[in-house]
Amino acid sequence: MALSFPELQPGVRILMGPGPSNVSPRVMKAMASPVVGHLDPDFIRTMEDIKRLLRIVFNTANEITFPVSGTGSAGMETALTNLIEEGDAVVIAAAGVFGERMADAADRLGARVQRVDAPWGRIIEPERIEAALKAAGQPKLLAIVHAETSTGAYQPVDGLGALAHRHGALMVLDAVTSLGCVPVEIDRWEVDACYSCTQKGLSAPPGLSPVTFSERAMAAVRARKTKCRSWYFDLGMIERYWGAERLYHHTAPITMNYALYEALRAVVDEGLEARFKRHRDNAAALQAGLAAMGLEPAAQEGYRLPQLAVVKTPAGIEEAQVRAALLRDYNLEIAGGLGPFKGQVWRIGTLGESSRREYVTLALGALETVLASMGVELSRGAALAAAAEAYRRVAPG
Amino acid sequence: MALSFPELQPGVRILMGPGPSNVSPRVMKAMASPVVGHLDPDFIRTMEDIKRLLRIVFNTANEITFPVSGTGSAGMETALTNLIEEGDAVVIAAAGVFGERMADAADRLGARVQRVDAPWGRIIEPERIEAALKAAGQPKLLAIVHAETSTGAYQPVDGLGALAHRHGALMVLDAVTSLGCVPVEIDRWEVDACYSCTQKGLSAPPGLSPVTFSERAMAAVRARKTKCRSWYFDLGMIERYWGAERLYHHTAPITMNYALYEALRAVVDEGLEARFKRHRDNAAALQAGLAAMGLEPAAQEGYRLPQLAVVKTPAGIEEAQVRAALLRDYNLEIAGGLGPFKGQVWRIGTLGESSRREYVTLALGALETVLASMGVELSRGAALAAAAEAYRRVAPG
Repeated sequence: MALSFPELQPGVRILMGPGPSNVSPRVMKAMASPVVGHLDPDFIRTMEDIKRLLRIVFNTANEITFPVSGTGSAGMETALTNLIEEGDAVVIAAAGVFGERMADAADRLGARVQRVDAPWGRIIEPERIEAALKAAGQPKLLAIVHAETSTGAYQPVDGLGALAHRHGALMVLDAVTSLGCVPVEIDRWEVDACYSCTQKGLSAPPGLSPVTFSERAMAAVRARKTKCRSWYFDLGMIERYWGAERLYHHTAPITMNYALYEALRAVVDEGLEARFKRHRDNAAALQAGLAAMGLEPAAQEGYRLPQLAVVKTPAGIEEAQVRAALLRDYNLEIAGGLGPFKGQVWRIGTLGESSRREYVTLALGALETVLASMGVELSRGAALAAAAEAYRRVAPG
Repeated sequence: MALSFPELQPGVRILMGPGPSNVSPRVMKAMASPVVGHLDPDFIRTMEDIKRLLRIVFNTANEITFPVSGTGSAGMETALTNLIEEGDAVVIAAAGVFGERMADAADRLGARVQRVDAPWGRIIEPERIEAALKAAGQPKLLAIVHAETSTGAYQPVDGLGALAHRHGALMVLDAVTSLGCVPVEIDRWEVDACYSCTQKGLSAPPGLSPVTFSERAMAAVRARKTKCRSWYFDLGMIERYWGAERLYHHTAPITMNYALYEALRAVVDEGLEARFKRHRDNAAALQAGLAAMGLEPAAQEGYRLPQLAVVKTPAGIEEAQVRAALLRDYNLEIAGGLGPFKGQVWRIGTLGESSRREYVTLALGALETVLASMGVELSRGAALAAAAEAYRRVAPG
């Protein structure tokens, strides 16, 4: 029996997909802390510290700020299932898998979904969002994705909260791939509900979904005429566990909370501004290198994420073979496309701990070598030279 | 800033509440394995091994057997939200917090809930369940709790699956506090949907909910007229990620799956029968010791869990002070009561790794010392003598 179930020995990967990103030694070490009970005073202190740290990272004073006990999509579901009641009109902006996902989830909850679509890779213009808010008729909420993980598009959010509020709607933001990489300004942008994850910009393992809810959102939750459809994600009950009452709801994932705590502490130690600059600098080098290799970005110019480059695959090659070679020969993970982008793009992430000059250099060098070996025409050495030049431009002094 | 967020240093506890239980060094070590991507071939191999291991522990051949990415209640929600459609009649047996929770969750999903109640601490008799199945009118499912964590009652399940099937209903079982401690016989008992957790009988940290669904249950899922209300817990989509297709749905909690894998491997290494005997033996000693201290069990005779002793607190003391003293002076966690049992009972668990002679001995010795110091009249030394006698009776040879 023992023979057929070997000891775990997963590869030591360099994670440059859209997440999970690499986990730092300090987070690994924190996960070795002893497991205590979910109502232990030592854990309660950690819960309080996590809430404070999340408020710093989300740039919010929201009291209701905590990690949902599930992965990123669990945060999406928490936001939508608590805010939507059967028959509510909602406006969902979708230009990729994660916008589609919100529309699907809202539809399942019985919402009347007014969509605002854009071609994949494009952002969604505020004028079109405003038109949809008008068309929806008393919209309950507007939901949009900050960093569309399937296309690499970087949606501007500033102003959308005020726009939603002018139409009596709450503002819901998917910050799954943005938190910890680029500014997420919950209070300044008037966002009412936001969810993220642990395994991308924060570089903890996957397992929790940090969320934050404004007082306006909580008022809507408290004014519901019907109970939240979900027992597990019911904010009213979770609030009583994560709040002062400490009323048992479910058993929080203790070790994952240790990981999140340490990952957030690392973000605060680095400083948000320094962290954003690091992401911008490595992205500039990576994107310069990919361009020098002739790989075209999928997202529209001026609106490309600095933590996730999505580029079109060269014609005439089997792109999955490239990814397989990178994993096999370099222990390097990059991702393929989703949905209509399957086989059409690569997604190369520099998120959190994975945003490092050494990894950018490796990724460009390895990709060039593999593409050349498959007969793709490219100018050898151009990618690394372009990246080095980009690094020179942002070097201090 | 760094000063105000200290390094994690939670206490080293002996966890004898109803879970989390202590985590073994081998599971802690497994969690230090490097995080890989959620579609990495190395992780896919671990996913397959986890499914095989779970089938052994659940005693089932069910293809759809995997861990839901949330804690135990997430498994409950997965079972109910996938099986229930608006207006379905369901029979829920409730004699404690976790039966109540199922009734609440089913009600939120729009089910017509036919309850079968019993006083807390009692089991629910099959005759009464049968009457409820008849009264319900075309019941979609029968749901019951195997090990009621709030009362310590041990519900017999054998025969209930066949009974449910005779009435055209599916059989749903909450095995949150039973899996890994006492036999859970999914196929033999004709259970169609079962959920558990990682942090009790399996002794991994909390964070996942192992579930298993029969072909009959999956046929009901596929025959739904309406989409599952929940996007996150939609079995049809999760199946495509955990099945051969490997279609991305959400990012599985990689590290928690490492922990579950190693915890399951430890169960199989020990052997299910040996593990159940260990739980029975330590329970016999603990329960003998508690009885010798004059503490009365809350659950009815003949139906008491061998992994969780629930006893009434002595009159005239502040029970929370006893628990605080045990935690402060002995690093020992036991739990208080929930709901109507708040302040009325203690719940002392010997689950998984916490089922050890040394911990039973410590718990009895420490509890006696604390109770004596608070003026409770008891015969000093009787508890440990009774426990030692119980161990002598089960000693080999």
